[in-house]
Amino acid sequence: MSEFDQAVALGGDADLRTAVLGEGWLIGGAINGGLLMALGARAMTEAVTAAGGGADALAFSAYFLSASQPGPVQLTPEVLRVGRALSTAGVSLSQDGHERVRMLGTVGDLGAMSEPVNRQQPAPALPDPDQCIPLSMGPPEIVSTIKIIDRLDARLDPATAGFGMGQPSGEGELRGWIRFADGREPDALALPCLLDAFPPVAFDLGVLGWAPTIEFSGHLRARPAPGWLRIRLTTTNVSGGLLEEDCVIWDSTDRVVAQSRQLAGIRMPSGPVA
Amino acid sequence: MSEFDQAVALGGDADLRTAVLGEGWLIGGAINGGLLMALGARAMTEAVTAAGGGADALAFSAYFLSASQPGPVQLTPEVLRVGRALSTAGVSLSQDGHERVRMLGTVGDLGAMSEPVNRQQPAPALPDPDQCIPLSMGPPEIVSTIKIIDRLDARLDPATAGFGMGQPSGEGELRGWIRFADGREPDALALPCLLDAFPPVAFDLGVLGWAPTIEFSGHLRARPAPGWLRIRLTTTNVSGGLLEEDCVIWDSTDRVVAQSRQLAGIRMPSGPVA
Repeated sequence: MSEFDQAVALGGDADLRTAVLGEGWLIGGAINGGLLMALGARAMTEAVTAAGGGADALAFSAYFLSASQPGPVQLTPEVLRVGRALSTAGVSLSQDGHERVRMLGTVGDLGAMSEPVNRQQPAPALPDPDQCIPLSMGPPEIVSTIKIIDRLDARLDPATAGFGMGQPSGEGELRGWIRFADGREPDALALPCLLDAFPPVAFDLGVLGWAPTIEFSGHLRARPAPGWLRIRLTTTNVSGGLLEEDCVIWDSTDRVVAQSRQLAGIRMPSGPVA
Repeated sequence: MSEFDQAVALGGDADLRTAVLGEGWLIGGAINGGLLMALGARAMTEAVTAAGGGADALAFSAYFLSASQPGPVQLTPEVLRVGRALSTAGVSLSQDGHERVRMLGTVGDLGAMSEPVNRQQPAPALPDPDQCIPLSMGPPEIVSTIKIIDRLDARLDPATAGFGMGQPSGEGELRGWIRFADGREPDALALPCLLDAFPPVAFDLGVLGWAPTIEFSGHLRARPAPGWLRIRLTTTNVSGGLLEEDCVIWDSTDRVVAQSRQLAGIRMPSGPVA
């Protein structure tokens, strides 16, 4: 079983699902939010499926209440509506009696809701993966605290990797390639994790500190084909110690498979602290 | 009292808030989702404030379960976390025993989290409001069913108003001006409503039918100055009977005050039905 499939394995019964967060998914002192969203999306989807609804989380929104640590977690799904094409659910993820994440989501059949493609954002031109810079080559004082770097093969376009040498572009954009390090192919289950697995776009503004997520919403638009994914993060509005971070992921056929937006804190050198 | 303030007046007690949806906020056979989000955001914010937290909904996500009709509604807020700068809440809005909307939100003090402006999306150049086209001049068979048009003074840039003459630009963009028709000035309470008050961006793709919202998330970035607001809606990814609709609102000082993204259904002429 792949590292990711182990990490999102759900036990327990229908009303109270259980999982175990592994140390390998730490970013600094907290478990990666993307992994928590993948767990929550899975718990919502399986609860809807058990109630007769669809099989994929088409949309999800996550609000983070407290930092998750390695160890057991409990997930309490709630089916809010079961529809012919679209269903709605919520889920609470907690640990040691403390709620960590609250989510809402829309569940449907992504296989039936991804074609035809009438228009889509073109995939960015990127140097080949072997011409891009693995995250593991980043500043050692950062890399050593980010255990998830070993779970993922994430490579930055050199044009947006300047932050690693103290020369961020200042454009507010990071782009590159991403896939699981152990070769597991991407699927709809993995996309909520992969949307939140690249470095914060704030790095390209020269802000290397932690960027706490306030709200994260993602949309899945197609089941990804096997192979490398392209990923682009951008930000446009930075004010009051907050910024929006937009992420788009394309599969190996250049299809947009997922997009997300989060509101996050940023500690601008001259600005207030979020 | 302004029409909007009447519409978002909350009664009841702390655990069960009440409101009355007026016919003037109908779009076709359902109450405008923006008004429902403004009610939900207010209920969450007041619950957080009562618990010692902030005063504005900085971020909110809404999932629509069933169409709301004119008449009484009940709102059940739940405070999930009260923090020094940021708090988190949820709310359920129901009517006649049926849940209509479920929301989550982050509450803080927008006055303390909007400065400085490090970077932001420039406001679009627009003809003056008196050179733009009021929505009330749209196709009569559409306008007559949209009661909310009388609550708002919304005017389209002629360059994006071609849909009214059967000549949509096909670019996937609508832009123009918006304010309340009775002169009420915009504020943080009104922004969740105004983010969902313009015509669907699908109109500019030649699709004039109903565009049901699947998920809607908004971020408030500053308290708006008095006067006209500029608004721009765009879409980039249209596939499988779904599209994302992004909205940005600027105040009269050209400040970005709010942005949102929704996933919505669209009935493309040659595509599947959402």
